[in-house]
Amino acid sequence: MLDSWRDGAAKGAITAFVARVTDPHGADLVPRADRIAVFDNDGTLWCEQPFQVQVFFLIDRIEALADKDPTLKARQPYKALLEKDRATLHSVGKKAVAELTAAAHTGMGEDEFEAIARDWFAAAKHPKFGRLFKRNIYRPQVELLDYLRANDFKTYIVSGGGIDLIRAFAEEAYGIPREQVIGSSAKLKFEATDGKARLMKLGELNSFDDREAKPQNIGLHIGRRPILAFGNSDGDLAMMRYTLGGNGPRLALLLHHDDDAREVAYDRDFRLSPLVEALDRAGEYGITVVSMKRDWNTVFGDDGARAT
Amino acid sequence: MLDSWRDGAAKGAITAFVARVTDPHGADLVPRADRIAVFDNDGTLWCEQPFQVQVFFLIDRIEALADKDPTLKARQPYKALLEKDRATLHSVGKKAVAELTAAAHTGMGEDEFEAIARDWFAAAKHPKFGRLFKRNIYRPQVELLDYLRANDFKTYIVSGGGIDLIRAFAEEAYGIPREQVIGSSAKLKFEATDGKARLMKLGELNSFDDREAKPQNIGLHIGRRPILAFGNSDGDLAMMRYTLGGNGPRLALLLHHDDDAREVAYDRDFRLSPLVEALDRAGEYGITVVSMKRDWNTVFGDDGARAT
Repeated sequence: MLDSWRDGAAKGAITAFVARVTDPHGADLVPRADRIAVFDNDGTLWCEQPFQVQVFFLIDRIEALADKDPTLKARQPYKALLEKDRATLHSVGKKAVAELTAAAHTGMGEDEFEAIARDWFAAAKHPKFGRLFKRNIYRPQVELLDYLRANDFKTYIVSGGGIDLIRAFAEEAYGIPREQVIGSSAKLKFEATDGKARLMKLGELNSFDDREAKPQNIGLHIGRRPILAFGNSDGDLAMMRYTLGGNGPRLALLLHHDDDAREVAYDRDFRLSPLVEALDRAGEYGITVVSMKRDWNTVFGDDGARAT
Repeated sequence: MLDSWRDGAAKGAITAFVARVTDPHGADLVPRADRIAVFDNDGTLWCEQPFQVQVFFLIDRIEALADKDPTLKARQPYKALLEKDRATLHSVGKKAVAELTAAAHTGMGEDEFEAIARDWFAAAKHPKFGRLFKRNIYRPQVELLDYLRANDFKTYIVSGGGIDLIRAFAEEAYGIPREQVIGSSAKLKFEATDGKARLMKLGELNSFDDREAKPQNIGLHIGRRPILAFGNSDGDLAMMRYTLGGNGPRLALLLHHDDDAREVAYDRDFRLSPLVEALDRAGEYGITVVSMKRDWNTVFGDDGARAT
């Protein structure tokens, strides 16, 4: 099932781990209910270059809002976003993107947001790869998710991206249902004013699901310590260390973007989501580093093709 | 499968609804992924009289803490709790109980709390019924949960009680896994100070999962509008109205505690969790009222027996 994974240390670590926790006669059998696997999304399941997909969505949303309210075009930070200034966008940080996204959808009902997000995913394409964003996902990771589920793992996304945006495509793209998506979230408000009960999105951030917040939200949403974690940046390190910190067999994997031919080579200098400590201390923490270049036969399944 | 339900309007509404949403040839077929059923816990799945089980747990925890720090015995509100003064306990309110429970476990690791809760459930008994609390649960509701799951519903608890306390017994008692429990929660803190990564409970409340917070937390945790909701107090009304407010077939059920012979008859005067508006306006809102006295053949399955 892991055809896009090259034989080597990373694939071997995955298959050995799964064999160990599922062997009914082994000492390390993990009950099905405790086979929890958590995956970061941006840069782990899909491409986050040159910006996270959330940033592209935000820019398009602000363009739509600026059509109705042209004064936005002169106001910061909207002006910088609308001008797609790369240096400025890299400097704003993931949390600011989450806050701006929340602010841009204040007072919108959950159904209204879902419709906007689905419409956007149906058409929006990656500027370099030319694929729909929702198909600009890593084939080896989709195979890994399938492989884990075939071994009775429950697979979760734990992302710094907006929870509602991810829920709008994760089932189709990854086979991960809405209730198994954890992400950054805006506060919600229940309203039943005109006789129609619904949830409205407020402009205020409820949780910025990055770094320490990732294990904290795993505790809140799942209430079990995962046995497998997969990330690609320092934002995932707390989740990986939390996963490794339990008893029994554990596996934490770190995707290293070292493949400039098929994707983008980057790590410590990507200001929107740097990888420094997790890479430098992977050995000490017991994290298995996955090289995109060496460990994956293919990145997108159709590398080089400009498919939609 | 609903042997403990008497034939009548309530049972008929349940079986007709399930037949309707699962009929593969019907116009109202609901995809399996959207068959979300949410249940309140206190007074809906188990007995909440004379106080919610959380209050009994809190009293026992404070007694244990007072053994180590006797000054607690003179301090309010601990003094009132330790003296089990019914009037005082009824007046504190559910939220204060949640806050006191959070405060009582400040600085405790998640594993430590889980061990304490499991030990407590292994021995603690209901003062009137004599059963272990975790067996002082409603047989008709356990059958209903099984029946819904047999029809590919995903069953959730959405409770004002503490999420960690419920998770310690819900799988055994109701077949509801930890990740399908939503409840009041304390803030968590990720720590990896001494090389051991873990989640610590903080004294501050993260969410008091009652009234409007119930649908808001459903939005956060599940991200789908339920099609069936079951509650027993005004604390569940927002969740019921949210459930009924979606398109297509919907069912909201309200358990009325009108059976003083087999359990306790109460509604609007129960200060810890009153039932007023949901009962008075059930017809207007489209809520089906379930009479414990008339609709259930048995309450606990061994009514009158003093079993453990």
